[in-house]
Amino acid sequence: MALLFRSSIDSEARWKPQLTRLMPELQVRIWPEIGDPAEIDYALVWRPEPGLLASLPKLKLILSLGAGVDHILCDPELPSGVPIARLVDPYMTDAMSEYIVLQVLRLHRQDLDYRAQQQAEIWRELDQKNAVERTVGILGFGELGQDAAHKLTQLGFDVALWGRHPRSVEGLLGFHGSAGLPALLARTQILVCLLPLTGETAGILNARAFSMLPNGAALVNAARGGHLVEEDLLDALARGRLSAAVLDVFRDEPLPAGHPFWHHPRIIVTPHVAAATHPPTAAPIILENIRRFEQGRALLHQVDVARGY
Amino acid sequence: MALLFRSSIDSEARWKPQLTRLMPELQVRIWPEIGDPAEIDYALVWRPEPGLLASLPKLKLILSLGAGVDHILCDPELPSGVPIARLVDPYMTDAMSEYIVLQVLRLHRQDLDYRAQQQAEIWRELDQKNAVERTVGILGFGELGQDAAHKLTQLGFDVALWGRHPRSVEGLLGFHGSAGLPALLARTQILVCLLPLTGETAGILNARAFSMLPNGAALVNAARGGHLVEEDLLDALARGRLSAAVLDVFRDEPLPAGHPFWHHPRIIVTPHVAAATHPPTAAPIILENIRRFEQGRALLHQVDVARGY
Repeated sequence: MALLFRSSIDSEARWKPQLTRLMPELQVRIWPEIGDPAEIDYALVWRPEPGLLASLPKLKLILSLGAGVDHILCDPELPSGVPIARLVDPYMTDAMSEYIVLQVLRLHRQDLDYRAQQQAEIWRELDQKNAVERTVGILGFGELGQDAAHKLTQLGFDVALWGRHPRSVEGLLGFHGSAGLPALLARTQILVCLLPLTGETAGILNARAFSMLPNGAALVNAARGGHLVEEDLLDALARGRLSAAVLDVFRDEPLPAGHPFWHHPRIIVTPHVAAATHPPTAAPIILENIRRFEQGRALLHQVDVARGY
Repeated sequence: MALLFRSSIDSEARWKPQLTRLMPELQVRIWPEIGDPAEIDYALVWRPEPGLLASLPKLKLILSLGAGVDHILCDPELPSGVPIARLVDPYMTDAMSEYIVLQVLRLHRQDLDYRAQQQAEIWRELDQKNAVERTVGILGFGELGQDAAHKLTQLGFDVALWGRHPRSVEGLLGFHGSAGLPALLARTQILVCLLPLTGETAGILNARAFSMLPNGAALVNAARGGHLVEEDLLDALARGRLSAAVLDVFRDEPLPAGHPFWHHPRIIVTPHVAAATHPPTAAPIILENIRRFEQGRALLHQVDVARGY
């Protein structure tokens, strides 16, 4: 049994020992040293080269190295009929919620203003509401959105979520579909994007969405750079329509030198670190999916390719 | 019935309407226009002038405008025998926990490093643990410490508290007394101070305490500036013994121009804003204490002057 490992950002040294320790019978082959392509059963990948997966004639299952699969589905030669599984790891979910809670609290507590005051040696108290008086809207009603919503709710925030389809989760206020989006935006002072990147969600953070938010709202994007129309954000910040943005993901990563986000006084940039994969907890989940496939059982978090996640 | 209002930092315009709306029979007299001192029954104060309280011959009860009373007890002419009540307002407790969670998450997620990287246009992922692998130690086992501990625990942090006396609260790990302090410090990567300022706690954040923390630990002080030996903090940061500090309170407030904290790359300064008093929620609590006094019932949060809080 052989697994191809190919990540454009992650080191095989973090993964191979975890995988082989738990499943010694699995041969882990590191791209480009893949041996005979016809021997590859499984592919564990992040943004594989277009055509790489199609070059594996006996490929049984594609395993994503992240929660999203846009980096796989964008391959124009993606073999049809090979199942794809997302990686849903509670450790990564917790990490994402840490990031979201930190950034929402930062915006709520006017941290950008207080940092600027410190630089200027200004001692001035700003008017401050409590979380119970602050609305947060989360785009994305999956594992990540729900976990962040619960943790923000525990801190007192007035949270609502939006997803493609109606969902009912105890204690969470939900909106859905194209009709529900304006309603969510209208009530949202801090907007958080945790959506999968699909044809429907690409560019969803645009001038039209920003115009539906209350004046001075703020944005946290921890999903994909493709959700954001970067020019629209810069324009909304310049006009004061939005007050601030925290961005972990970008159209081009690494964020290019000289990009206006780097030195914008109202933008926080982090280098795609909100929820890094964590081999010690993720490897058992990935191997469980391989076992399930071998035994003909239902996969964990299998992707609906037509839906895009 | 007359109440003297005197705050060195807060405006009577925020308080008087809230108090008189709820208790129209209460005359609110704003210092220095106090009228006949012998008519004053109650004093609602923040850092009153030394001797002011002693000049009120019929004073029945002293009400603090904050959770701490060090600003009252430091008056050398403080009349003995007049009861003193702290202000414990769940709204302020929530605000304090927001601040603590924000700052602990900031330190946990290496925000100072990521801000410096953004300034230098550096795209680099740093090794990151999850909260479950991060120890937080809270000095102070009162309302504020317990609320912050619960909320940090919900985010996964490994939290312990320290107080003067043993306490048992479900789900919280406690240490106490002078023997328990080294044990708490030895297990604490992020140290949070929420103690009352008393003769026993003044200067507790000193070189000796820092030397008991794991190397590279970080500090959040949201209690009183008098808890911290400022020179010891600067020395510990210079030697790398501590990695960072977030300070909301200072020996001298406002923090003086040119103070080394303002521009220190490993110190976050906020201008005593962690948990501001909030008249809409605090006024009913203060008036409840006046009613209790009038009816001869037990006061809320009466101070033990000998203990200091």
